[in-house]
Amino acid sequence: MHPVIKWDNNHILLLDQRRLPLSIRYLTCRNYRDIINAIKRMAIRGAPAIGVAAAMGLAMGSSAIRARNFDAFRRRFREIADEMAEARPTAVNLRWAVERMSALVDSCSVIPLDEIKQTLRRESEIILAEDIDINKRIGRNGEALVPEGSTILTHCNAGALATGGYGTALGIVRAAHEAGKSIRVFADETRPWLQGLRLTSFELMEDHIPVHVIADNAAGSFMRRGMVDLVITGADRIAANGDAANKIGTYQVAVLARENSIPFYIAAPLSTIDLSIKNGENIPIEERDPSEITHINGRMIGPRGVKAINPSFDITPAKYITAIITEKGIVRPPYLAGLKSLFTTEAQSAQR
Amino acid sequence: MHPVIKWDNNHILLLDQRRLPLSIRYLTCRNYRDIINAIKRMAIRGAPAIGVAAAMGLAMGSSAIRARNFDAFRRRFREIADEMAEARPTAVNLRWAVERMSALVDSCSVIPLDEIKQTLRRESEIILAEDIDINKRIGRNGEALVPEGSTILTHCNAGALATGGYGTALGIVRAAHEAGKSIRVFADETRPWLQGLRLTSFELMEDHIPVHVIADNAAGSFMRRGMVDLVITGADRIAANGDAANKIGTYQVAVLARENSIPFYIAAPLSTIDLSIKNGENIPIEERDPSEITHINGRMIGPRGVKAINPSFDITPAKYITAIITEKGIVRPPYLAGLKSLFTTEAQSAQR
Repeated sequence: MHPVIKWDNNHILLLDQRRLPLSIRYLTCRNYRDIINAIKRMAIRGAPAIGVAAAMGLAMGSSAIRARNFDAFRRRFREIADEMAEARPTAVNLRWAVERMSALVDSCSVIPLDEIKQTLRRESEIILAEDIDINKRIGRNGEALVPEGSTILTHCNAGALATGGYGTALGIVRAAHEAGKSIRVFADETRPWLQGLRLTSFELMEDHIPVHVIADNAAGSFMRRGMVDLVITGADRIAANGDAANKIGTYQVAVLARENSIPFYIAAPLSTIDLSIKNGENIPIEERDPSEITHINGRMIGPRGVKAINPSFDITPAKYITAIITEKGIVRPPYLAGLKSLFTTEAQSAQR
Repeated sequence: MHPVIKWDNNHILLLDQRRLPLSIRYLTCRNYRDIINAIKRMAIRGAPAIGVAAAMGLAMGSSAIRARNFDAFRRRFREIADEMAEARPTAVNLRWAVERMSALVDSCSVIPLDEIKQTLRRESEIILAEDIDINKRIGRNGEALVPEGSTILTHCNAGALATGGYGTALGIVRAAHEAGKSIRVFADETRPWLQGLRLTSFELMEDHIPVHVIADNAAGSFMRRGMVDLVITGADRIAANGDAANKIGTYQVAVLARENSIPFYIAAPLSTIDLSIKNGENIPIEERDPSEITHINGRMIGPRGVKAINPSFDITPAKYITAIITEKGIVRPPYLAGLKSLFTTEAQSAQR
C-alpha cells in the first residue's frame, strides 16, 4: 500500500486522493498552509488521516516560527493551531491532534525552542505510528464479528487511505482476510466524491480482497435480498451518547441495516469520540460546494444554473448502531456509560 | 417542453435522453429495430414513454411488412412484437403496449392490410395522446395530497421525459404548481444514470418550478432533519398486492420515508399495474452493464479491472407505500382489492 502521508526532509508528501486511482501522485506541502489547503480540498481525507496531517502540519509550521522567547513562540503556534483546527469542521480528530500538539507545546516552556520544534516533529511521527497501531488493534477487536464467508457492506472509505495506514472499517476487513476468512466487500460508490468507487475498491484490490462496487442506491436492495451479512463504516465524530457523524449516506445505510436485521458497526479510534458533545445534534455538519454534485471531473453534468445542496456528513442516531469497535474494545449500548469507560480505563492505565 | 417522441412522416423522432441536458438532439428511428435499440440503450426511458415508443415502433414495423395475406401479416407482426417486448424486462408498460397493438391486429382479420397498417399508426397516436391525458388526470388526482408550501422529494425521473408528456410523479408536481401552490422539489440525482440531475432538474427548471438536486445519499438525512414533507415517485411495474418495481434506490427512499413518518406515494397509470403478478418477488429486475457505475461520460473513474453490480430497479414492498395515485383515483391499502377494483370499474365503464 502506498503511504498516505510521509515526511520528506522538512516537507510533507501527501498521496493526492483527488487523483486516485487513475494517477498515483504525491503532493508536496512546503508549509502548514499547504497542509490546510490539502485538507480543505480533500487531497487528504478521512478523520484519522486528517488528524495525522494536522499534527504533521503543525510540526512543520512550528519549525518555521522565528520567535525570541517561548511566549512569542507559543502565541504564534496557537495562531497556526487555530487556523489548522478550522480546516474542516466535522471530524473531531483534527481538533484532537491540534489539542495534543498544543498541550505538548504548553508543557515545554523551559525547553529551548529548537528542541521544542524537534519534539513536535517527533510527536507527529508518534501520532502517525500510533494511528497505524490503533487501526491494527481495531482490526483485531472487530475481526471476531466477521463471520466466515460473509459479505461486508461499507460506505465511503475508512481504509488505509483514510488513516495513517491499515484502516478502521477496512482494518477489520483486512484482519478478517489475514485470519484466512473468505469474505467479500460491497463498496458503496459514495457520491458525490466517489470514495468507494475510487479509493475503497482500489485499496482492497491492491490487497487481493474481493470487492464489488455498487451504487449507493443499491445498498438497501442488496440487504433486502439477503446479500449483505454486516455493515461496517468509519466515523468522523462520535458524541457521548453514541450518535455518530460520518459520510453523507451513512444514516441511510444504518436505517436499512436495522430494517433488514443486519448488524451495523462503526469502527473508530478513541480520537474520534467527543465526550464533550452530548449528542449528534451538536456536531457541526460541513456543507461543501454544490459543484461536487453537478460536475464530474470538472465537467458539468446537470443543466446550466441547476442548484444543488451538498451536506458532506450526516448523523446516525445511536439506536441504529449495533456496536462501536475501538482499539480498546467493542462498546455496545448503552453507549453513554460504555464510551465514557474507555477513557476512564485509559486514564487509569496512564496513571499506572 | 420538448416532445419526447413524435412521428416525422414515416420515421419516428426521439429526444435523445442520453445527451440531455447538455444537448437537445432528436434521434431518427427509421425501422422498428432502431426503436428497440433506442429503448435498450435508454435514448428513451421511463415506463410510460417506453410503452408509447413500443406502440409507435410496432406501427412503423408493421408498415414495412410485405405479406400476401392476413395470416402472413399477423405471423410477421407477432415476430416483431415478440422482439419489441424483449427490449427491456422490468417496465410492464412495454408488454402492455405490445399486447394492445397485437390485440388490435387480431381484431382486423377482415380488413385490407393497408388499412390495418393505418389503424396501427392511428392507434399509436391514440396511445400517445391518451398517455398525456392520463398523466394530467394523475396530476389532478394527486395534487390534493400536496400541501401548500411543501417540499416534495422525488427519485429518478417520472416526468414529461418519462412519459408521452406532463409526467406521473412530476405531473402531480406540475398540477400543484399550476394550482398556484408554492412548492419545491428535491430531486435525487439518481445514480448511476443521473436521471434526477440530468432530466428531472432540467424539465422542472424549464417550467420554473423550484428544484434542488441532492445526492441520493442525502435523501434520508434531509428527511430526518424535517426538510421533506412527502415523497412521490413513479413505478415500472406494480404487482397485484401493491409491491412496486421502480428505479434502483426507490426502496431505500420508501423505508426512510416511513422511518421518518413522511408519506411515500407512487404515481402511475393503470398500464403500469400488472395484476397477473402476485407480488414483487415475481417482477424481473434488469441488471445493466457495470460500466454505468465505473465510467462517467465514457471515462473510467474506478481502478482498472474493478467489478461492479448494477441492478437497474428494486422492489418496494407495498407496506411502505402510503398510496398509489392513478388516473382512476387514489388507491390506499389494502392494495389487492383496491388495485383490482380499478380494472373492474374500467371494464364496467367500457361495457356501458
